[in-house]
Amino acid sequence: MTDTTTARARRRAAVDPRFPGRQDWSSWPAYEAAAEGFRGYWYPVEWSSRITGTPRAVTVCGEKLVLIRDGGTAYALFDRCPHRGVPLSMGNQQFPGTLSCVYHGWTFDLTDGALTAVITDGPDSPICGKVRVVTYEVAERLGMVWVYIPLASEAAPSIDEQLPEELVGNDFVMGGRMGDRVGNWRFACENGYDEGHAKYLHRTALWRLYKTMPTWNLTHIEKRGRWIYRVQDEVHFEATFPGVGTWTNYRWWKQRPPTETFNIGNTGKPKQINPVIAAQEFPGFASVSMPGVLRIVYPTFIHYEFYVPVDADNHRYIGVMVNFPATKRSGYWFFARYLGWIRWLFHGQFSGQDALMVEATDAPPERLYRPDVSLTMWRQLAQDAVAARQAGS
Amino acid sequence: MTDTTTARARRRAAVDPRFPGRQDWSSWPAYEAAAEGFRGYWYPVEWSSRITGTPRAVTVCGEKLVLIRDGGTAYALFDRCPHRGVPLSMGNQQFPGTLSCVYHGWTFDLTDGALTAVITDGPDSPICGKVRVVTYEVAERLGMVWVYIPLASEAAPSIDEQLPEELVGNDFVMGGRMGDRVGNWRFACENGYDEGHAKYLHRTALWRLYKTMPTWNLTHIEKRGRWIYRVQDEVHFEATFPGVGTWTNYRWWKQRPPTETFNIGNTGKPKQINPVIAAQEFPGFASVSMPGVLRIVYPTFIHYEFYVPVDADNHRYIGVMVNFPATKRSGYWFFARYLGWIRWLFHGQFSGQDALMVEATDAPPERLYRPDVSLTMWRQLAQDAVAARQAGS
Amino acid sequence: MTDTTTARARRRAAVDPRFPGRQDWSSWPAYEAAAEGFRGYWYPVEWSSRITGTPRAVTVCGEKLVLIRDGGTAYALFDRCPHRGVPLSMGNQQFPGTLSCVYHGWTFDLTDGALTAVITDGPDSPICGKVRVVTYEVAERLGMVWVYIPLASEAAPSIDEQLPEELVGNDFVMGGRMGDRVGNWRFACENGYDEGHAKYLHRTALWRLYKTMPTWNLTHIEKRGRWIYRVQDEVHFEATFPGVGTWTNYRWWKQRPPTETFNIGNTGKPKQINPVIAAQEFPGFASVSMPGVLRIVYPTFIHYEFYVPVDADNHRYIGVMVNFPATKRSGYWFFARYLGWIRWLFHGQFSGQDALMVEATDAPPERLYRPDVSLTMWRQLAQDAVAARQAGS
Repeated sequence: MTDTTTARARRRAAVDPRFPGRQDWSSWPAYEAAAEGFRGYWYPVEWSSRITGTPRAVTVCGEKLVLIRDGGTAYALFDRCPHRGVPLSMGNQQFPGTLSCVYHGWTFDLTDGALTAVITDGPDSPICGKVRVVTYEVAERLGMVWVYIPLASEAAPSIDEQLPEELVGNDFVMGGRMGDRVGNWRFACENGYDEGHAKYLHRTALWRLYKTMPTWNLTHIEKRGRWIYRVQDEVHFEATFPGVGTWTNYRWWKQRPPTETFNIGNTGKPKQINPVIAAQEFPGFASVSMPGVLRIVYPTFIHYEFYVPVDADNHRYIGVMVNFPATKRSGYWFFARYLGWIRWLFHGQFSGQDALMVEATDAPPERLYRPDVSLTMWRQLAQDAVAARQAGS
Repeated sequence: MTDTTTARARRRAAVDPRFPGRQDWSSWPAYEAAAEGFRGYWYPVEWSSRITGTPRAVTVCGEKLVLIRDGGTAYALFDRCPHRGVPLSMGNQQFPGTLSCVYHGWTFDLTDGALTAVITDGPDSPICGKVRVVTYEVAERLGMVWVYIPLASEAAPSIDEQLPEELVGNDFVMGGRMGDRVGNWRFACENGYDEGHAKYLHRTALWRLYKTMPTWNLTHIEKRGRWIYRVQDEVHFEATFPGVGTWTNYRWWKQRPPTETFNIGNTGKPKQINPVIAAQEFPGFASVSMPGVLRIVYPTFIHYEFYVPVDADNHRYIGVMVNFPATKRSGYWFFARYLGWIRWLFHGQFSGQDALMVEATDAPPERLYRPDVSLTMWRQLAQDAVAARQAGS
Repeated sequence: MTDTTTARARRRAAVDPRFPGRQDWSSWPAYEAAAEGFRGYWYPVEWSSRITGTPRAVTVCGEKLVLIRDGGTAYALFDRCPHRGVPLSMGNQQFPGTLSCVYHGWTFDLTDGALTAVITDGPDSPICGKVRVVTYEVAERLGMVWVYIPLASEAAPSIDEQLPEELVGNDFVMGGRMGDRVGNWRFACENGYDEGHAKYLHRTALWRLYKTMPTWNLTHIEKRGRWIYRVQDEVHFEATFPGVGTWTNYRWWKQRPPTETFNIGNTGKPKQINPVIAAQEFPGFASVSMPGVLRIVYPTFIHYEFYVPVDADNHRYIGVMVNFPATKRSGYWFFARYLGWIRWLFHGQFSGQDALMVEATDAPPERLYRPDVSLTMWRQLAQDAVAARQAGS
């Protein structure tokens, strides 16, 4: 958004009562500019099992990539043959270690993208070695293929520096779902970390059929390392709004609300907390880090959401549920629970309610309220990360 | 359309024989500017029976509204929660007299749009009373909900001043259909009042299966009050075009054409005219008034069409057939006739032929002919209405 | 593409390694400008049998036309009633030798487009004779209706000057298919004449199930008259690419590759060549001429492709297979072969592979290679044709 656009928006607000509040995100200029995501980060793009010898096209941060597996290793190239612009993902392998364009058999080395042969121009083709397709660094973690989208052409940092710390060096069992969703990735991330909506929007979710959701909370945000945490200071299960009425999510068939505010899960103090999770000493139930990773901590498992920018109007939603089992048997038991209901209720219907909101959100203009400190602190986290990087730290 | 565009269009016409005639509507600048309709008028938007406690979204004059009924009264609000831009029509009622946004439970008073409670921010939410959603004045007439789309934020004039005069103070029975149609509302209104097309385009309509349509007419336009009337001076049922041939809509199974020109209905002098209709002393069969209301007068009933602007490319077509019965029994009889065939033949197939033309019309450029005096006089009526309003009358 | 755009593209190339090579087609400015095709040529638009008394809409070079047949002769008019912009193709015939608009019965003479009658305005309609719809010259050849799309309003040259020479004055039997395809017509034409792709992309075509395709060729281009010809100097059926591997299309069930390079067909020297084809002394197997006509010469038949511009994003593909039979019986035999398999394998599946590539091509930017001399020479042919015409020759 240019200065001119911003100025125009401000003028509009002065005269148009239909669009009150903040007219733009110019308080966080880097965040405002990141409609297609932040470059310079690793992004998960597909389940590892779906990357095979048959090329697959994905779009990340507005960039079209082709993924292919060869000799067990996954590779990513810019998905465009430099010859005539045909996607390389329409091609296939003619020789080990290469990918050939479907149109004229231009053949690229998977490791460095170099044009190593042109089938239709013979062994002495003068163009060989003179053309190169851009390649991307690839890693595999959590059963997924990750690609590094560079700022320019810098080498990627280790993916372990970006992964949630507890997922590096601990054994875990996991289940997850991913899918393309309509809406900008920032709306998805803001929705995920949003303090306010969960207890109201999701009050009807089957996942919460037997558990009373709060009516309102008092919250503050704490920063620790790469993450900011929502810390619940007060949790209220019923409220009377002056002149309007009384409201609660409690129903006779639901568990009675807890009497104590607790920051692992949001339904009261649990009997036992998994030792790996306890060891993290998370200050709060919900945390977020760059470039759009949400962590929701429950007593015996952690739910992560990765909001992968596709383009300005679409994102890829990845939800992962992780358990740190003490024994092999308890790991199997967790996975059975995942397949039995977590996958369908939590990663399905509950998360589908969010998808509707992310698609419907249309801001700025926006008029933020008290719980939105979670949103503004997240935007500031993103803004600070870009500033720190530009400062060379 | 800017001056530059107009100038460009004129230059094009000078060199491009494919697009002869009038290149723009700059003779009627207010009309040319009204692609999304004229603000400052009442518009019918939905059947009253369809506005219930469940919010419903409608778009009028490019403006998104949410309609909801509470305690028997219909309300209209701008369909956007100021918080994050989610449509309020996705929400529902949590308290009487209010509408709550589905996302975070922002709760607005239906009468004035004030934010009276925020469920997820507790009873002491500091934002309450500081935000307001724009509301619209609502009326119910002819079994429909009408909203006033203001020029700015002025109070609405009485809807009775805008309704066809004979519909205020007389008892009537009615039937009607409404639906969204493709095409600008001006093409719909011009098609409705258009002298030229009816007898040619609709000659194949089942509604006219047994009644001969004229071949050509001589017409003039008379203004009376808020309305202009088409007055038929001559009606010709057959014509021989020099060097081309003879043409008539008469067929052996159709009624013989009338020998007399008459201005109530267009198929000859009727035996009896309904007293309420006769009392109006309408100068002509077809009349039109702002902001796009057509009246077609038959001896025993009147057909109205309301062309409601949705956006620049779509309108809402509302066709209503009204009878002024002398007795309750004759009212029931009219309604039976309406359900029996008028609804399906006239408001269905006949009117569907118009829908095709409205969608296909693409003007200006346009090359008008003699019967198009009905169009230019209508445009002038609209132009004069805007000028009178700007002059403060 | 403006100079500014070109300059921007060049700057991008300097910094963006994802889009190497030629950034625009400014070396051939007339070709670059011809996104909607070259005006001043005859184009085939529909099978003659499909042009009847019922009007049919077609789009050529971005221009909307209505075709209709009257008294055995096909006519083409600009498909827009000057009155209100409704397509004349929605109308029908009310009088011989005319076409009437569906909306108000404006009636145009098919020979010169003059408005000869307005049904709804009577015999003395003052507008008659004052309005004219643009008409197009029409010819019928090869069982198709052709229209001349003029540069301005010049008379059309004889279509025989534009048809492939061997199709004028020789008897022939033919079969063909046509259909609308996605993609700019230039990508379709370049694909058709492209030296490089056929043997690689089409290696899997059923049409070539029993015939080995070459791996790579050496080619040069010869110009003769209006045509340029691809002349194959070397044909290689196997190649070993250093460090990559060996590649051949030969399989045990396919015919052994020929040992001799030959320029009628690309599968070796045939036993016998049709006398009409032999008499042409074509220098090469594949040739192309303006405004986008491909000729592929086989020993006993010739395949033509016409790439008809519809608009910037769509073209009409017409494939025609022509045989010059010595006897009536051999003509019948050819047509049986056409219906039996040529139509389905060659004009169907084989040509469908091309359709996919034309849709996927996205150039410039492009990085051309040695066999693309066929492309650049074709662009130069087009460029020279425009220059010669502008020079008045």
